[in-house]
Amino acid sequence: MRIGLLTSGGDCPGLNAVIRSAVLHGIKSYGDEFVGIRDGWRGLIEGDHIELSRQDVRGLARQGGTILGTSRTHPYNHPQGGPENIRERMRRDDLDAVIAIGGEGTLAGAKRLADDGVPVVGVPKTIDNDLKATDYTFGFDTAVSIATDAMDRLRTTGESHSRCMVAEVMGRHVGWIALHSGMAAGAHAILIPEQRVSIDQVCEWVQQVHARGRAALVVVAEGYVPEGSEEAVADKGQEADGRPRLGGIGNWLTDQIEQHTGIETRNTTLGHIQRGGNPTGFDRVLATRFGIKALDLVHEQAWGHMAALRGTEIEKVNLTEALDGLKEVPASRYEEAKILFGR
Amino acid sequence: MRIGLLTSGGDCPGLNAVIRSAVLHGIKSYGDEFVGIRDGWRGLIEGDHIELSRQDVRGLARQGGTILGTSRTHPYNHPQGGPENIRERMRRDDLDAVIAIGGEGTLAGAKRLADDGVPVVGVPKTIDNDLKATDYTFGFDTAVSIATDAMDRLRTTGESHSRCMVAEVMGRHVGWIALHSGMAAGAHAILIPEQRVSIDQVCEWVQQVHARGRAALVVVAEGYVPEGSEEAVADKGQEADGRPRLGGIGNWLTDQIEQHTGIETRNTTLGHIQRGGNPTGFDRVLATRFGIKALDLVHEQAWGHMAALRGTEIEKVNLTEALDGLKEVPASRYEEAKILFGR
Amino acid sequence: MRIGLLTSGGDCPGLNAVIRSAVLHGIKSYGDEFVGIRDGWRGLIEGDHIELSRQDVRGLARQGGTILGTSRTHPYNHPQGGPENIRERMRRDDLDAVIAIGGEGTLAGAKRLADDGVPVVGVPKTIDNDLKATDYTFGFDTAVSIATDAMDRLRTTGESHSRCMVAEVMGRHVGWIALHSGMAAGAHAILIPEQRVSIDQVCEWVQQVHARGRAALVVVAEGYVPEGSEEAVADKGQEADGRPRLGGIGNWLTDQIEQHTGIETRNTTLGHIQRGGNPTGFDRVLATRFGIKALDLVHEQAWGHMAALRGTEIEKVNLTEALDGLKEVPASRYEEAKILFGR
Amino acid sequence: MRIGLLTSGGDCPGLNAVIRSAVLHGIKSYGDEFVGIRDGWRGLIEGDHIELSRQDVRGLARQGGTILGTSRTHPYNHPQGGPENIRERMRRDDLDAVIAIGGEGTLAGAKRLADDGVPVVGVPKTIDNDLKATDYTFGFDTAVSIATDAMDRLRTTGESHSRCMVAEVMGRHVGWIALHSGMAAGAHAILIPEQRVSIDQVCEWVQQVHARGRAALVVVAEGYVPEGSEEAVADKGQEADGRPRLGGIGNWLTDQIEQHTGIETRNTTLGHIQRGGNPTGFDRVLATRFGIKALDLVHEQAWGHMAALRGTEIEKVNLTEALDGLKEVPASRYEEAKILFGR
Repeated sequence: MRIGLLTSGGDCPGLNAVIRSAVLHGIKSYGDEFVGIRDGWRGLIEGDHIELSRQDVRGLARQGGTILGTSRTHPYNHPQGGPENIRERMRRDDLDAVIAIGGEGTLAGAKRLADDGVPVVGVPKTIDNDLKATDYTFGFDTAVSIATDAMDRLRTTGESHSRCMVAEVMGRHVGWIALHSGMAAGAHAILIPEQRVSIDQVCEWVQQVHARGRAALVVVAEGYVPEGSEEAVADKGQEADGRPRLGGIGNWLTDQIEQHTGIETRNTTLGHIQRGGNPTGFDRVLATRFGIKALDLVHEQAWGHMAALRGTEIEKVNLTEALDGLKEVPASRYEEAKILFGR
Repeated sequence: MRIGLLTSGGDCPGLNAVIRSAVLHGIKSYGDEFVGIRDGWRGLIEGDHIELSRQDVRGLARQGGTILGTSRTHPYNHPQGGPENIRERMRRDDLDAVIAIGGEGTLAGAKRLADDGVPVVGVPKTIDNDLKATDYTFGFDTAVSIATDAMDRLRTTGESHSRCMVAEVMGRHVGWIALHSGMAAGAHAILIPEQRVSIDQVCEWVQQVHARGRAALVVVAEGYVPEGSEEAVADKGQEADGRPRLGGIGNWLTDQIEQHTGIETRNTTLGHIQRGGNPTGFDRVLATRFGIKALDLVHEQAWGHMAALRGTEIEKVNLTEALDGLKEVPASRYEEAKILFGR
Repeated sequence: MRIGLLTSGGDCPGLNAVIRSAVLHGIKSYGDEFVGIRDGWRGLIEGDHIELSRQDVRGLARQGGTILGTSRTHPYNHPQGGPENIRERMRRDDLDAVIAIGGEGTLAGAKRLADDGVPVVGVPKTIDNDLKATDYTFGFDTAVSIATDAMDRLRTTGESHSRCMVAEVMGRHVGWIALHSGMAAGAHAILIPEQRVSIDQVCEWVQQVHARGRAALVVVAEGYVPEGSEEAVADKGQEADGRPRLGGIGNWLTDQIEQHTGIETRNTTLGHIQRGGNPTGFDRVLATRFGIKALDLVHEQAWGHMAALRGTEIEKVNLTEALDGLKEVPASRYEEAKILFGR
Repeated sequence: MRIGLLTSGGDCPGLNAVIRSAVLHGIKSYGDEFVGIRDGWRGLIEGDHIELSRQDVRGLARQGGTILGTSRTHPYNHPQGGPENIRERMRRDDLDAVIAIGGEGTLAGAKRLADDGVPVVGVPKTIDNDLKATDYTFGFDTAVSIATDAMDRLRTTGESHSRCMVAEVMGRHVGWIALHSGMAAGAHAILIPEQRVSIDQVCEWVQQVHARGRAALVVVAEGYVPEGSEEAVADKGQEADGRPRLGGIGNWLTDQIEQHTGIETRNTTLGHIQRGGNPTGFDRVLATRFGIKALDLVHEQAWGHMAALRGTEIEKVNLTEALDGLKEVPASRYEEAKILFGR
């Protein structure tokens, strides 16, 4: 078969590892040929791609980002998009199938295309860990690892200056990165979109810590909205063009804590470093296994399906299942983490 | 309650994080008191322990090793050991329960003691990932991470000198560390105790790689025994006192590859660095959750049970289940990895 | 002798390593006693200190921050400050000498006190590398290392999305961190306080890179002021209370590049993570050697002097020399770096 | 000009950064053309090289090893070697100059060729830091960093088990890596080729540490020979083919310490991981500056000279100066380190 690979949406450590293992598996096990489609659906629609040989994917398991480029093009919104155009384009470009690696939006597009007769399978990608139907995806562990390392550094500064340190991490809709990195770093408060904790409660946790002569670490996800301060926060959260403002909530929270408690407080917005660079071993293994599975799905002609992690197994799941709402942090996990707040 | 904590067997990143979260949870949620038992079962039997306050466990989430020390003492083999003595000792020391953190041997001891009326619960610990009943334990991810990082380094040396590089990793009975770190590092062959691959097959993989102008990376677990070379390998594997000789199989394999293929080959035995130092974010989260769960098990009086990871949940499992044989790498996982060998 | 140690000013990786080696050297070589003075000059003036035993400093070589705490108290501005009070306080507290570890302000205070008869020696500390009389100080290498690592991550994101990435690093008055981390990460433009490069020039460099299908990395020090945009920048640079606003220049520059070039551009402000956490090997060695030298200076009664690195040697220099103006990035070093801009 | 670049001898982090900056500088500043000569002098003599464009060197600043390959071929010993042949070959291959990046042997070859009329300049390379005439070379800082990190890990294991940990690091003739990494990691004994410390002395240091309830870390360079045990050590040190046996001295020392002190002791031989992988920020800056300087030397026609670091400056030095004997650890530096032994 001749198979196209595309990456779509925000970049994520492990994308290249998926590409690599799918290509190596296909060449070796099935004699497949591969093309790398540039910049997500755009490249598929416009026929912008390159051949991918074994040589082209060497060393990719440990390389961050995506060698194929990525974009936010939607396959139905592009002027030459839509299933008929795409099927026709694939025929002309001699493509038998497409492996689409992306997040919720990408997989929704893939699902709709598959339903409309385009031979496409998916690989789930989300740094935020917000996809149902898979326990984890690659990129999340790397983001947690980077955030944890940064927080370890912040703590020494906080302790030296008796300051409260705030760390803003990714997570517009779900708080998984905040939850895991905060728990790993021993944070004294973790604030996530799923839980409407009040500023008063946050300040109480901070003061408990300072009352014992320690310096508090507060971890906040981008999308956290404090109970009772919805309006105050709303205008901190966005750039003029609608994309979220990095540091919006972190800086706001820092001011609030300082004002309410009188404790010197500093914000650090981790921002883009959370999604770049070499993947962790965990993410490389997961991405490699996903790539192998995706290629098998192609040969099974399991269009509209994707690879998923369940426990320790890689399984085939229908994209419908993956798209059934965001995977939020359950209340039980937040309660578990809360045991260690304040103290 | 007044609860003792002990760590037993080989050290492992995450032990301190278990201790920390159990202590903080107990103090805050139940008003418990804690004692740290020194050097595993020895300290319990001999009454060698220290009080553990909140202050004593601060900052421990990110600290490798165990502040309690560890030993290989067996609770039934020590002169003052056995359930009657231990129960009596616990009464004198005012200990209501013990949380025993350790591997297969430790948990077997804990199980037997619980059956004999000692109030003990377990936390599974194994760098090798060889315990059934839990998907993973803390320490394994850190070991994979360290080994992967080391192999990334070896690859640049191999490529620069057109050498085959051999990396010997931990795994006397099971090949999980080799499997995961080898897959993460893009190894061209992974050799594990569960699979009796022949030297000829290994050399074929190495030669395929060198035939394409590349330098092979071969990952071998300590306990690998090549098909047809059992005797040759046997006398490489042990020190006079019976403990395994680090580098035994790695050096032997290096010589074999060099002799059979004529390709310059070098061994690196990663050894003790795999089990030391700061745990990864993944392991800190897991260990923290295990500590919280273990404390809950104590208050449930679930003697003879332990915390375990199933998918993304921490569950209670009977120690009997955990001790039902080694968790080996299944053939399917090896076949999956093998797809990327040689190439 | 009975010697007090204090750390003053911003925290810095390596402070603890200085404390450790001075204490161990003094105990072992001279039979000295040590006290750790809390929160810089404040603790000296108020007599707030603790005994420091060999046990207290164990493991400190690799620990970031300062176990003594730090403050920005000036020894002459404190109500109970000034040389007479301090000498009297030292007499009451039985302190024969003080080792003051700090930056330009701290050392200026130390110099003035020494001139006024207080037995004090200095150890230079500056993450920014802005002190004359020493080739480097501890903390700088760690900051460069952290910033370089972060930039490696930003580059994969930039390349995946064809975005220009901006990284704001520390350096209010001098550009050393920007220069070294930018050079290490292969930045396409490095902007420092010492050089008034115009926005047009920056955009030209960025466009050269994008014209070749690559994604530019621009590194900017906090204190950079673009030629011709002094006023526009001025109000971005400060909080209401006068301290510099993190992200001020980075965000401003990002907007400018995006507006002038039409290339999607994103800022990351590294902020506090640059000064926290474990020091690099380089910084630990340097800090350890400084601590040893400082103790020798005490026994030489070389009041008003400090330890300094010259080439590979640790030397004694007069504080006057260290305080003779900021060490700026010389034009020749900027010209050297500029060779690799744009391209 | 048309300039050839070659790397020779053992690989080293930073080689690629030298290649990159020399090529970018030459293309941009002088309009030079570049060829990458494969496998050191062999490629020059046999005319085995490839064109190097700007594209070929992108991203190389952070990549370990050498993209050119390396070998130990001597330019005078190869059948087609010697100055006449090489000058003739360079004429045929249209090469105006050669930049030779390598250690003592490579630079000696370069010096002799330059004296015999071959237009060649040098860049010093030595992980061991054993070259006179330059304060440091790239690779050394990375090796120290890797070794320090490994020792941090070993210490947690040592403390948990109350074991003495031995770490064998590189350094056949000089002890710089042992000295710096041991000092950074807080080692309790550092053993180097330049100092004939006796086993009794080593054991005394170890026992002092264990007597205080701590676990000792002993760092030993490959080339250490204990006073009074020359013969016993001699046959541990070599493979049949004459190359040094990794782990030879480390294992021998471990046995000795265990036998003499009765303290459980374990060896870890760091081996090849010390020279592979991504260079540190420090080494990338140094290598980048060396590459720029080397290109300038070519345009100065400074044949027989090399780039060197003096303090913070990159200078031109005659290769004669660089080759004037090994740069050993001076006794004063060992005495300084010794202050912290035992304790």
